[in-house]
Amino acid sequence: MSDVQTFVRQAADLLGPRGFSCDPDLVEPWLTDWRGRFHGRTIGLASPASTQEVAEFVKLCRKHHIPIVPQGGNSGMVGGATPDESGHSVLLSSRRMDAVRSFDVDARQIVCDAGVILQNLHEKVEEEGLRLPLTLGGKGSATVGGLIATNAGGTQVLRHGTMRAQVLGLEAVLANGDIFESLTALKKDNRGFDLKQLLIGSEGTLGIVTAANLRLLPQIGERVVAWVGVESIHMARELLLHFEACMPEELEGFEVVPDHCLESVLAHLPDARAPLAERYPWNALIELVAAPAQSALLREATEAAFAGAMEKDLLLDAVIAANETQADNFWLLRDSIAPAERALGPAMQHDISVPVERMPDFVEAAIPHVEAQFPGTKGLAFGHLGDGNVHFHVLAPDGAVPGEWENTQGKLVSRVIYEMVTEWGGSISAEHGIGQVKRDELERLGDPVALNMMRSVKAALDPDGLLNPGKLVPGSG
Amino acid sequence: MSDVQTFVRQAADLLGPRGFSCDPDLVEPWLTDWRGRFHGRTIGLASPASTQEVAEFVKLCRKHHIPIVPQGGNSGMVGGATPDESGHSVLLSSRRMDAVRSFDVDARQIVCDAGVILQNLHEKVEEEGLRLPLTLGGKGSATVGGLIATNAGGTQVLRHGTMRAQVLGLEAVLANGDIFESLTALKKDNRGFDLKQLLIGSEGTLGIVTAANLRLLPQIGERVVAWVGVESIHMARELLLHFEACMPEELEGFEVVPDHCLESVLAHLPDARAPLAERYPWNALIELVAAPAQSALLREATEAAFAGAMEKDLLLDAVIAANETQADNFWLLRDSIAPAERALGPAMQHDISVPVERMPDFVEAAIPHVEAQFPGTKGLAFGHLGDGNVHFHVLAPDGAVPGEWENTQGKLVSRVIYEMVTEWGGSISAEHGIGQVKRDELERLGDPVALNMMRSVKAALDPDGLLNPGKLVPGSG
Repeated sequence: MSDVQTFVRQAADLLGPRGFSCDPDLVEPWLTDWRGRFHGRTIGLASPASTQEVAEFVKLCRKHHIPIVPQGGNSGMVGGATPDESGHSVLLSSRRMDAVRSFDVDARQIVCDAGVILQNLHEKVEEEGLRLPLTLGGKGSATVGGLIATNAGGTQVLRHGTMRAQVLGLEAVLANGDIFESLTALKKDNRGFDLKQLLIGSEGTLGIVTAANLRLLPQIGERVVAWVGVESIHMARELLLHFEACMPEELEGFEVVPDHCLESVLAHLPDARAPLAERYPWNALIELVAAPAQSALLREATEAAFAGAMEKDLLLDAVIAANETQADNFWLLRDSIAPAERALGPAMQHDISVPVERMPDFVEAAIPHVEAQFPGTKGLAFGHLGDGNVHFHVLAPDGAVPGEWENTQGKLVSRVIYEMVTEWGGSISAEHGIGQVKRDELERLGDPVALNMMRSVKAALDPDGLLNPGKLVPGSG
Repeated sequence: MSDVQTFVRQAADLLGPRGFSCDPDLVEPWLTDWRGRFHGRTIGLASPASTQEVAEFVKLCRKHHIPIVPQGGNSGMVGGATPDESGHSVLLSSRRMDAVRSFDVDARQIVCDAGVILQNLHEKVEEEGLRLPLTLGGKGSATVGGLIATNAGGTQVLRHGTMRAQVLGLEAVLANGDIFESLTALKKDNRGFDLKQLLIGSEGTLGIVTAANLRLLPQIGERVVAWVGVESIHMARELLLHFEACMPEELEGFEVVPDHCLESVLAHLPDARAPLAERYPWNALIELVAAPAQSALLREATEAAFAGAMEKDLLLDAVIAANETQADNFWLLRDSIAPAERALGPAMQHDISVPVERMPDFVEAAIPHVEAQFPGTKGLAFGHLGDGNVHFHVLAPDGAVPGEWENTQGKLVSRVIYEMVTEWGGSISAEHGIGQVKRDELERLGDPVALNMMRSVKAALDPDGLLNPGKLVPGSG
């Protein structure tokens, strides 16, 4: 019996029939990434039911030198949860670990297994008048473990931070099978290196997140959503500063949308209409929220803030959503940009960030730079101005062949954008992580000192390179 | 010429007469820690003038195998910046690196050298209507680099977090002399491990912080300070929850003071008087703040919150400071507890934390536990209830000999307290760090898995053990 066969038998013995399978029908759906860009092979799919089983399974893998690819909801954007094509690794899913371990409503904390799905978590805490202030498109499949491993973002980062800011405590299984348990929330704890911070965002390359203690906030009492027309992205930034100054605690979202994107969305959604009578070069979508106790004053305060902005010439026109339906419609315009632009033809999409204060200059410099280097392309930037997070799309020239352009000129376009964002002190991955997609670019453009540190830490904590090889850390696996 | 003599000559050549000295008169003052509990020896005192000089100096030390003890304001509480008695190491001070590199008022960010003193930083940013929301007793000497290396806390952690939460970017010199530069603030950046988080709180054992980019907030418009009498620490916690629910954005401090501490302070400060007509078993000191735009409503909102608390029987009596002088007086009572208790005789002080929600039970369990095990002692707990951070003092029995009791029974008292806090899922060092003082206790009581990770990371990033040996990481140096 080969070593792999022995491993399979021992894994099945350890995890039982529900916990380990090599059945292609069961395994196959999890071997392709969310965007359909990567397809891998695997020895089998492990679905342990507890942290203890994860630990035992990791020890077994270590004994047989079998690499492990951890997977949550398989909704990542960079192929970070897809095994390579060698078929030598095993897929480790958190799907069976989906229990809430404890929920302290007073302390506003919930401890849950890694496999809990974000939307279920939202529903669970909403029943008690609380909320987890992080949401994103894939919430119906994204798991707590995956959100932590990728330090996920979303639309509420401006006010509440990324997943890192929601994590009060963490449990993970390390490469040697040890269980790192740091679930207890301590607001002050200076007992050495903050190891949980190292695990957050490490994409399963340093440890497998098995549970987390998450901070919760009171539910929103009221929100006010406004759509604003501005002359330029610089004016939008001035408006952002104005709201940060006069409504710092209420400002929950500040998105920018160029007219071209609005145009595409209106063409894409037959029932949609532009929020303002006139059209302006740029639009801002602003969301302000208040706790229940302070809801009464929110609309009044917002109106006062807008009056102040008008006086200072920080906007051309604005409309405050009259009700929740209208508010949802404003957000629908914003959320439909990606599909609307995709409908226009081949495009390269880039999830990048620059310092918030440099974002207007960056956008104004980057678009003509790319369009000049690649005649016929059209650059579009939209997204979270408040976070300095630009979704930078470049549409292919007319007549470009879908599927071909992306792999030829499109790749060159991306190289240029990543070089430019690096020169501006920004990040080639604002939200989605590195995974398989950007590992070469990270190696090419990353700070050699930081890359060196990453490799050292990886080698120290996973000396055999068994955890998610080929992902994130350049030169590993 | 010995190797050390060669090193001294080369260090003097590299850093110049202002940058390197072996003159005992100049060096001696920096060889004793703030509390006077540790005294060390050193080859010499290096005071580089730039990051580049720090990097060159570290390389020189590495060549000669000379350990380096980084030092900021030398106001740490755990001997973390004091060299050992061997005299084999060199002291590296940040004193000459005290420039503000850039200050972006709009973006509310300041980039400054590690040697900038906290109080100077406060004054600098206040000129522009901003504040760094972190302060502590040693602000006149504590440096930015030291605050980051120790992840300092203070009285505003409840609302604004520890130093970690203020750091937007970091620059540090690593053990191999490389400069890790990550000063640019990016709200979203998922390019791998967050290495700056690893450096924060590492007490100079993984790298030497040379500069930081810090987040600033708008200055406070108004504050309201209240003194409240409660029946028990449990009632205080209920009151805290009430304020967290109805004034979540305004609540900036929530301290608890047992009557014994108030009594000691009133005896210690001849001009002080108790804020309330009657005396109660426990007191809470509550601070609420508002931005200038929202100042007008703060007092009214506070009064409404107190009325609600009265109705729910969450307090016995309360007084809101009528003016700033009275507010300062309330805080003076709180800040005088440590000296007032010290004046009563020998005592052991403990900087510990437990989960906020367990703090009332912990205090009620720990005091009788300690007093029963050590007859004649008196346990006192006060401090930051909102952070779960208890200052736990144990007064010696009558007749105990100062200087002797602390080193005999006092040590046993501390062992018992650290064991108990560990059992309760708490931290043996909430604010002050580990340094030399608590390294043995960390080794004895720390999670072996976490200690193992710490040692692995330390060995990976400082394989020769040259950075602050003998501090923090058990078993290193």
